[in-house]
Amino acid sequence: MNRLEERIAKDGIVREGNVLKVDSFLNHQIDIQLLDWIGAEFKRRFEGVEVTKILTIEASGIGIACMTARHFGVPVLFAKKTPTINVDEDKYFSEVASFTHQCINHVFVSKKYLSPDDKVLIIDDFLAHGAALNGLTDLVLQAGAQVAGIGIAIEKGFQDGGRIVREKGYQVESLAIVDAMDPKNGTITFHSQK
Amino acid sequence: MNRLEERIAKDGIVREGNVLKVDSFLNHQIDIQLLDWIGAEFKRRFEGVEVTKILTIEASGIGIACMTARHFGVPVLFAKKTPTINVDEDKYFSEVASFTHQCINHVFVSKKYLSPDDKVLIIDDFLAHGAALNGLTDLVLQAGAQVAGIGIAIEKGFQDGGRIVREKGYQVESLAIVDAMDPKNGTITFHSQK
Repeated sequence: MNRLEERIAKDGIVREGNVLKVDSFLNHQIDIQLLDWIGAEFKRRFEGVEVTKILTIEASGIGIACMTARHFGVPVLFAKKTPTINVDEDKYFSEVASFTHQCINHVFVSKKYLSPDDKVLIIDDFLAHGAALNGLTDLVLQAGAQVAGIGIAIEKGFQDGGRIVREKGYQVESLAIVDAMDPKNGTITFHSQK
Repeated sequence: MNRLEERIAKDGIVREGNVLKVDSFLNHQIDIQLLDWIGAEFKRRFEGVEVTKILTIEASGIGIACMTARHFGVPVLFAKKTPTINVDEDKYFSEVASFTHQCINHVFVSKKYLSPDDKVLIIDDFLAHGAALNGLTDLVLQAGAQVAGIGIAIEKGFQDGGRIVREKGYQVESLAIVDAMDPKNGTITFHSQK
């Protein structure tokens, strides 16, 4: 197991309904040393890939994106959530379905921060159904920029987001892929990693 | 001028209604080298102050808090926003008035991540009326923990939040204090710093 998998096994809490709570170290309280390792590991896995910008989505992606950007030496851009689309020629908008909150979030970035020259590494904390990733890649493509790769902390391998996004041809690096979770005894089974 | 003040003078945009837009480097697109400098500068200004945890509020405080936590070697905790208070014995709640969005946000942290032993450094991107700071200090005090200090990237010195929070006896370190802004010619006047 790598460092993230070990931490999930130790401190992750499995709940009914395929819920994995990691708020003691990843998305409420944040272990900065772990995030620094995550950033370094993304840098290692995307070695040789040209990256000019890191794109994530508020709120829980921001910490991971910032600690990753330090290893790449590039700026972070985070997509903002908004309940409504106001007509605004200066922004790219996309939609992100939230399974947790059972609603559609609109997300946007300012057009001036994504250009056709950008090679964008998309970073997020979770990949499950792929709704957030779908919105983020859409923003990159609207700008005429290129998706350099996708870096995910925790992928729920038993849901279909990872398969769908890999079938589109993107390099997806998930540092921990959960193949199965058992809320009764709390066990978490990880996909074997390189 | 320090590095943050120079950047604000160069790239900050002044709008009518006391709006200072810094979304090209601080709270939409993020310059990671600048955030790393901000973190190091907070560490210098709070030298000798015991800090066990950094507390901020989603979303735009998270990047600064994470890059600051790296210099302190402590975890980050970010308060989450919620439109409603659900009765929940596991969380501390407080209220934050949003002048931008003209509403009250409820914010919360899980009780298990703030203990009476904690010495909490509160970090945020902006200090204007002090509404967010008021909510964050309230969360710390509900936990019986201690506010070790308050670190702010940009303080609007012509609004009253800074005075109010300093009168409570907290050490407040604002890396850039804007004394005046002129939307007509875009000039920004900074308070003289040590």
